[in-house]
Amino acid sequence: MAATINHVWRLATRPYGMIKPTDFEFLAEPLQEPDDQQILIRNVYLSLDPAIRGWLYDGKSYLPPVQIGEVVRCLGVGIVEQSRHPGLAVGDLVQGLLGWQEYAVSSGEGISILPASELPLSAHLGLFGLAGRTAYFGLLDVGQPKEGETLLVSSAAGSVGSLVGQIGKIRGLHVTGIAGSDDKCEYLVGELGFDAAVNYRNSNLRELVKAACPGGVDVYFDNVGGEILDIALTEMNNFGRVVVCGSIAKYNATAPVPGPYNFSMVTSKRLRIQGLVASDFIARDREMLEDFTRWYKQGKLKYRIDLVKGLEAAPCAVNRLFDGSNNGKLVVQVSEAPGE
Amino acid sequence: MAATINHVWRLATRPYGMIKPTDFEFLAEPLQEPDDQQILIRNVYLSLDPAIRGWLYDGKSYLPPVQIGEVVRCLGVGIVEQSRHPGLAVGDLVQGLLGWQEYAVSSGEGISILPASELPLSAHLGLFGLAGRTAYFGLLDVGQPKEGETLLVSSAAGSVGSLVGQIGKIRGLHVTGIAGSDDKCEYLVGELGFDAAVNYRNSNLRELVKAACPGGVDVYFDNVGGEILDIALTEMNNFGRVVVCGSIAKYNATAPVPGPYNFSMVTSKRLRIQGLVASDFIARDREMLEDFTRWYKQGKLKYRIDLVKGLEAAPCAVNRLFDGSNNGKLVVQVSEAPGE
Repeated sequence: MAATINHVWRLATRPYGMIKPTDFEFLAEPLQEPDDQQILIRNVYLSLDPAIRGWLYDGKSYLPPVQIGEVVRCLGVGIVEQSRHPGLAVGDLVQGLLGWQEYAVSSGEGISILPASELPLSAHLGLFGLAGRTAYFGLLDVGQPKEGETLLVSSAAGSVGSLVGQIGKIRGLHVTGIAGSDDKCEYLVGELGFDAAVNYRNSNLRELVKAACPGGVDVYFDNVGGEILDIALTEMNNFGRVVVCGSIAKYNATAPVPGPYNFSMVTSKRLRIQGLVASDFIARDREMLEDFTRWYKQGKLKYRIDLVKGLEAAPCAVNRLFDGSNNGKLVVQVSEAPGE
Repeated sequence: MAATINHVWRLATRPYGMIKPTDFEFLAEPLQEPDDQQILIRNVYLSLDPAIRGWLYDGKSYLPPVQIGEVVRCLGVGIVEQSRHPGLAVGDLVQGLLGWQEYAVSSGEGISILPASELPLSAHLGLFGLAGRTAYFGLLDVGQPKEGETLLVSSAAGSVGSLVGQIGKIRGLHVTGIAGSDDKCEYLVGELGFDAAVNYRNSNLRELVKAACPGGVDVYFDNVGGEILDIALTEMNNFGRVVVCGSIAKYNATAPVPGPYNFSMVTSKRLRIQGLVASDFIARDREMLEDFTRWYKQGKLKYRIDLVKGLEAAPCAVNRLFDGSNNGKLVVQVSEAPGE
């Protein structure tokens, strides 16, 4: 029997600091029918990313903020169940900003058909999705690493960082990861082939980074900002590049957060600090897909999905991105994946 | 009669905060004779630059710090009076790190013969020197401005900033300068052809910058860091570039200075922040010299020398770089210029 109810999480109040479930309302709403030129998507997997926290702030950014009363924005993959859109057919597997809900009605704007892949559907979030695009284009296009250089990456056991480090190894870099537990550090070196990994909960982090990167750092892939960025700047070589993917240290801040105290090293070391937003590279997804699929089949690229079952769990699960307790790409499963 | 005494300023103690004359010793020393492979240079003009303050800090940078007891480092131009060096002849006009002294004995390392020019000798500091190289390569190579874009430059009435803005106009940019007095702002617009100028001593600086750059800022040439950098970041357009030439706001600091509070805009706006050290571009001086000479003769490029007479005045004069009281390139005249 076709569903008639759509469960959704709507923003009730702007979070202050860490997200609380009471910042949202969980509602059972009548399922909307698609109008002419629209589709109805059954959401299968929703991607939990640090960017979600940023989209809840009321301020100008690369996307407008989620408004009070709107469905919480997130990326996801799903299957078209009804279509009155000429370019999309029932059964198409699609991705886009599907939101924290069971079903999404869409005009098709921002929705794209998933490229064919031998990998399971969840790979489109764990490997090919936002994380993969950020890692692939961030490291290779923005970071411009040269073989033999030294790469340092923070949040290295996270969905982006773990791919950044592995791509670095494939490209012949010396790779050090920074992560939040000894278990994660062991995973980075033992499973993913990083040259070294450092637990940022150690008090002598700077000395540990220095020891792990004895020739200095040429490319720092920054997922966190804050104190770790300052340590990285201290260890950067002349003409080094800092890829600024995010500033997790700041996302839940309730007061202004200063930038790096070592900012003046930008001049003395002629550093290039450059930001990226993964969606700028969507048109080049095929390059990533081909490389990733080949590397995955060759066993050079691994990914982990940290699967959370049920839409209800989303508001609690998202905070695991910020306390470091997730293991791999954090994904909420909303409904059954086709063919799995 | 040939001189037998060399007056020199040596570093006595590392300055804390602003430079004090008592941080140095003014000494009358016996004039050294050049050894084999050495030259004796009579210093004519010494360049006072913010970089001098940085070189007095005890820390790793692109040049080693000046040590206690050493002659204070500075750029200058002079004339070879004695030579036992095969590549340099008596009468050659040269530039290099001559230091706060009347005469410099040198192995020739870091000393270069000045290119022939129809302009007065002081132009090699005010136009072609460190300031010109910083402005020319910083704006054009690092900033990569495109015709029609908007340029914002701080310390705009200073030696670097005034050239940056004029080069910007020559290259078809909309140029706004930030300076420290209404007189300077009038000079920028009335004499140098800037489109707008804003006095940073106004309390509503952000609104004034916004009004002067209604289409946002594409290239910000940063000479100061601090609060003005934060305002610039707020007004930057997506894919904007920040050329980090210096951080005057920090040079005399006695406690750690935070980086920009709006650092996270690097990601959301995909900014590129890049530092430069002018000496990296020495090999390309000819490009600058040719363009500057042509533009100067066409009346498109003006420069001002703020001339201070006498080596004794150097330690007091250098602080005028930081309180904004200099008018143009600050130069100390140590001896008579040949042919002027």
